[in-house]
Amino acid sequence: MRPSGRKTDQMRKVTFERNFSKHAEGSCLVKFGDTHVLCTASLEEKTPPWLRNSGKGWVTAEYGMLPRATGERMRREAAAGKQGGRTQEIQRLIGRSLRAIVDLTALGERQITIDCDVIQADGGTRTASITGAWIALHDCLKWMETRSMIKVDKVLKDHIAAISCGIFADQAVIDLDYLEDSAAETDANFVITGSGGIVEIQGTAEGKPFTEEEFASLMGLAKTGIAELVEMQKQAVA
Amino acid sequence: MRPSGRKTDQMRKVTFERNFSKHAEGSCLVKFGDTHVLCTASLEEKTPPWLRNSGKGWVTAEYGMLPRATGERMRREAAAGKQGGRTQEIQRLIGRSLRAIVDLTALGERQITIDCDVIQADGGTRTASITGAWIALHDCLKWMETRSMIKVDKVLKDHIAAISCGIFADQAVIDLDYLEDSAAETDANFVITGSGGIVEIQGTAEGKPFTEEEFASLMGLAKTGIAELVEMQKQAVA
Amino acid sequence: MRPSGRKTDQMRKVTFERNFSKHAEGSCLVKFGDTHVLCTASLEEKTPPWLRNSGKGWVTAEYGMLPRATGERMRREAAAGKQGGRTQEIQRLIGRSLRAIVDLTALGERQITIDCDVIQADGGTRTASITGAWIALHDCLKWMETRSMIKVDKVLKDHIAAISCGIFADQAVIDLDYLEDSAAETDANFVITGSGGIVEIQGTAEGKPFTEEEFASLMGLAKTGIAELVEMQKQAVA
Amino acid sequence: MRPSGRKTDQMRKVTFERNFSKHAEGSCLVKFGDTHVLCTASLEEKTPPWLRNSGKGWVTAEYGMLPRATGERMRREAAAGKQGGRTQEIQRLIGRSLRAIVDLTALGERQITIDCDVIQADGGTRTASITGAWIALHDCLKWMETRSMIKVDKVLKDHIAAISCGIFADQAVIDLDYLEDSAAETDANFVITGSGGIVEIQGTAEGKPFTEEEFASLMGLAKTGIAELVEMQKQAVA
Amino acid sequence: MRPSGRKTDQMRKVTFERNFSKHAEGSCLVKFGDTHVLCTASLEEKTPPWLRNSGKGWVTAEYGMLPRATGERMRREAAAGKQGGRTQEIQRLIGRSLRAIVDLTALGERQITIDCDVIQADGGTRTASITGAWIALHDCLKWMETRSMIKVDKVLKDHIAAISCGIFADQAVIDLDYLEDSAAETDANFVITGSGGIVEIQGTAEGKPFTEEEFASLMGLAKTGIAELVEMQKQAVA
Amino acid sequence: MRPSGRKTDQMRKVTFERNFSKHAEGSCLVKFGDTHVLCTASLEEKTPPWLRNSGKGWVTAEYGMLPRATGERMRREAAAGKQGGRTQEIQRLIGRSLRAIVDLTALGERQITIDCDVIQADGGTRTASITGAWIALHDCLKWMETRSMIKVDKVLKDHIAAISCGIFADQAVIDLDYLEDSAAETDANFVITGSGGIVEIQGTAEGKPFTEEEFASLMGLAKTGIAELVEMQKQAVA
Repeated sequence: MRPSGRKTDQMRKVTFERNFSKHAEGSCLVKFGDTHVLCTASLEEKTPPWLRNSGKGWVTAEYGMLPRATGERMRREAAAGKQGGRTQEIQRLIGRSLRAIVDLTALGERQITIDCDVIQADGGTRTASITGAWIALHDCLKWMETRSMIKVDKVLKDHIAAISCGIFADQAVIDLDYLEDSAAETDANFVITGSGGIVEIQGTAEGKPFTEEEFASLMGLAKTGIAELVEMQKQAVA
Repeated sequence: MRPSGRKTDQMRKVTFERNFSKHAEGSCLVKFGDTHVLCTASLEEKTPPWLRNSGKGWVTAEYGMLPRATGERMRREAAAGKQGGRTQEIQRLIGRSLRAIVDLTALGERQITIDCDVIQADGGTRTASITGAWIALHDCLKWMETRSMIKVDKVLKDHIAAISCGIFADQAVIDLDYLEDSAAETDANFVITGSGGIVEIQGTAEGKPFTEEEFASLMGLAKTGIAELVEMQKQAVA
Repeated sequence: MRPSGRKTDQMRKVTFERNFSKHAEGSCLVKFGDTHVLCTASLEEKTPPWLRNSGKGWVTAEYGMLPRATGERMRREAAAGKQGGRTQEIQRLIGRSLRAIVDLTALGERQITIDCDVIQADGGTRTASITGAWIALHDCLKWMETRSMIKVDKVLKDHIAAISCGIFADQAVIDLDYLEDSAAETDANFVITGSGGIVEIQGTAEGKPFTEEEFASLMGLAKTGIAELVEMQKQAVA
Repeated sequence: MRPSGRKTDQMRKVTFERNFSKHAEGSCLVKFGDTHVLCTASLEEKTPPWLRNSGKGWVTAEYGMLPRATGERMRREAAAGKQGGRTQEIQRLIGRSLRAIVDLTALGERQITIDCDVIQADGGTRTASITGAWIALHDCLKWMETRSMIKVDKVLKDHIAAISCGIFADQAVIDLDYLEDSAAETDANFVITGSGGIVEIQGTAEGKPFTEEEFASLMGLAKTGIAELVEMQKQAVA
Repeated sequence: MRPSGRKTDQMRKVTFERNFSKHAEGSCLVKFGDTHVLCTASLEEKTPPWLRNSGKGWVTAEYGMLPRATGERMRREAAAGKQGGRTQEIQRLIGRSLRAIVDLTALGERQITIDCDVIQADGGTRTASITGAWIALHDCLKWMETRSMIKVDKVLKDHIAAISCGIFADQAVIDLDYLEDSAAETDANFVITGSGGIVEIQGTAEGKPFTEEEFASLMGLAKTGIAELVEMQKQAVA
Repeated sequence: MRPSGRKTDQMRKVTFERNFSKHAEGSCLVKFGDTHVLCTASLEEKTPPWLRNSGKGWVTAEYGMLPRATGERMRREAAAGKQGGRTQEIQRLIGRSLRAIVDLTALGERQITIDCDVIQADGGTRTASITGAWIALHDCLKWMETRSMIKVDKVLKDHIAAISCGIFADQAVIDLDYLEDSAAETDANFVITGSGGIVEIQGTAEGKPFTEEEFASLMGLAKTGIAELVEMQKQAVA
């Protein structure tokens, strides 16, 4: 029995609130239950130095948490003077995931930065970030299409979404909330495209090591869940 | 004529959304028009080192802006490795303002940290922060009262609120939005208590210097506006 | 009764020692009683990046205190690895104040950096810095005029000087020294031009809030005091 | 055909040179072909703050590369003033992997720090680090057993080793060298215990997404390879 | 011929202005010609962590230059966020030199920090700093003796002074000013006690290497010069 | 009697292992007894900014120690966020020493960076670094000559080597190991060319000051020892 009463294959309620930000070229407040992440897409007409004159653009991501997004207040990274290892891991993951479904040559020599800022955390912030970031990216590309800068169909090759799965109380469950995440024996994050291609897998045994069979059951849950998320993304931008 | 069509003494629509955060002991999403700031109050059962064994507590504040809260994306301070001078000025101002209406001895050896994070900016983020921070602080103290830790009436001596006024197009106006702020010749922030005591004044000539008469007209606007804000605070926590 | 025996409207003895530095294009050791600040003006034939090709120049300031300028040794900011919030506030204030009386277009694409380094502190370091900085700036502009780079009269639009006033022992007094500053209920800094235009006002209630009448009395003291300081500047550069 | 001429399931030559360091309580120079990593174990009689008086110890890891371990010289992280995101990811991975096979309570309130410093890099530095770190950790624990501080059998629950696998030229191959790694479509790292339990999986599509079947073939290679590595560890410490 | 017209063995005019600072326990403005350094001694009733409960005290030094102490403005180290290598070298040298003539056990568990801040630079700032620091240290110890904390004779074992010598235009000369320093082929700094014991030697070939004979001639100059400096110190504190 | 049983003028066994690194243009693992330093030379086709369009190149050095190169683990400088004062002193010394025997104009507008990383420390790491760095530099220049970029004879003007000498148990001894170094009263490092020219001298009294005669005996030892080291360098590159 899960603390939330959910079934093993039941995700939390997921919502996307588009155009949340007045300023950004694309934005989305994504909620997976009590995990709320604001994703904004910012367009710049320049690329990082290593891509100058390459004809290619870049998509990158930054991640942050408000200090009291969590149960106990965490130190503000700006005050600490650096981004922690966890923050860097997550923002690198978000960036790689998005680049997997973008044609950087079709984008042209521009950079899109996706900021994923966690307003409230209850487990699964990195997977919610990736799933919401796709919406912000999509809307930024639409904004550009309206201005005849690109064709969305050329740049955006597919959907991308992510979900966490884990072994909680000896059962494979999907979309762990904080209570489950803290107690899970194994925790895995999956990033999968709309056409079912796997882009990232990160599995970690928190307590005892896991078996190949257990991992396969997590992947099974993830594939189904991500297919649902992609469906929701389609409805959201329809 | 103001860009927004407002009258010279007309503030933007102000709203307080209490309990915005699931985790914080007190929280408030404050909106002054398109300026949206999330204020959270976090209680810790310890004081800064210089107050240990003094019997007194502390109230402090931190301020931040999401990178795309503004019209152009700003560099994330956590990535830059330090908080800028403007950020530090503002968070010091918020902290001083709140301490002016708190009895630190009645609070006891505890620290309350108010985080003011700007979700969207359209001018006046520091004054919105102070005004909303009072709500978050009040609710945190109520939370403590419920647990018999303090009496709110002993700790919270008064209301506190803030507003910006400025000389725009040769007229004294209240509650400048970004368009006005960028073009104003003079910009002043006032922090005033519920009983009308002045706590902070910051006036700056952006272009040509101002006169004592101009400054008096700004202060007149501020006093009236802050009285309204205090009334709204009262209704919000009623 | 003031600790120093001064009258409420009596400033400390103020002196300017021009050409204190062998190397700088302009320099001044300013003393307000036991507060001693070395102000140097350094000319560079380039502007900050955001002004390139604008035809305009820039005037900026940096502020520092020697570690033992104060009663207790403070940690050296260079060793701490960053400038504190107070330092940044003050240097931003000095820069803004000077730019208020400089025609940046007449200066041309050059930058003048005013360094204000506190050799000894006894209250009022920021106001002494601004008042002395004007001398250093003036002398730097004279140096440039001698080399036919500019006309001083075109660039330097006015005098600028600053003074602190406060409510000490229930009386409005001018030019607080450290003893008064530590005990004052209210502390305000005023930056005013030679023609009486107000450029900056910063008023803070350290203890109980202040009234509009109290603030008016502080401003009255400041206006008279700054008029005297401007007169001394005129004699110093005569 | 692999650039090195190896078969798809053939690892590079792996060697362990124990006691490489005169000073460390345990040390090992591990080589996977041209990838050479020096692993040292340092014992301290204290734990991190959050474990004080818990009766438990800690095992942690740090990772670094000499600036010219790579084909092009990289900037020294000490000179850059911070560890990069990749470095932090890797050292967190090494630490988690080792803790998975250590009984921290049996270790007692002590900390063992494993430093993995890459002397020369040719792909697979993180997996070589984990595999060599086990030897250094083992020898440190033996050193402690000799001094009657612990029993190795109680503290060290299992072997741990790691290997990278990837899809190179449409084939699943094991132990990618730098040439393969740069060109691989998919790259995955596996950390597995001596008894076959999976501790970490990290799979990333560098180019096109991968399928569940491809991932299964990578895992198959990894399981066989890691079993071989564990056998070599056993011989090395025999 | 030296640019200043001095003879090869002629130092610049050296002066010590004691009690320059109102706050410090000991202070001295030392001038070697146009090189002016403010040395302050600050007493703290605590030692560094590694000396706690050892019965011994510590003497340490910090060094800084005002940004426009030099011909071209240098970046402020506090703004750059770190002390440069040259600064660290010099402050380590000053600290070691002073500790060579202090009985740290007789000092007791206290720390004296000598701050050497260069107000104006014209070559030889490190040697002027050491020579002036001795005065500040002496006066701090006198201050302590007056309060019955120590006996100066027990703590201060000897004088210490320093001078630079160099090969300029093929001649050994003493006390190089900036013009000479920039052009010298060899530059050496000597730190020697009142009784003639050598404490530090730092010799560097800026252009072509030097010979043992050349070095001996530099040392000869230094010994004579430092004997003169020690004599001046004696008169200064008499 | 020396702890190692060596005679006063007997250096430790010195070996050079050329081409230690697969990637670097030149490399050498130098051992002075148990002190092991890896020196790599990295060529870049660009100069530092201040040499652009000067026709001259640059040789610079960086120094580091692995955290457990020493008896007690030291904090990793990359994790601490900065290089310590000792590290900066040493790398500046290595760079100056190498530039003393290089014709920077004959090198052309290129930079060679010598990284000296201490794998294991037992005293004398800076002198071993300089001595080994010459080999790495030589081999890098040979690599360039093979590609017709330069003539080694034009660029490399001489050999350079370094040794430490000290007063240990009242006797002048050469090549101090850690045990001697910790206990020595005086410690001096000498950097001398193949033709006997002195490039750097650093002498420090750790305990009581030293005399001119003692210093002369240290220099005598150094000259003989360095002549031997130069002979070994010649054999190594023959």
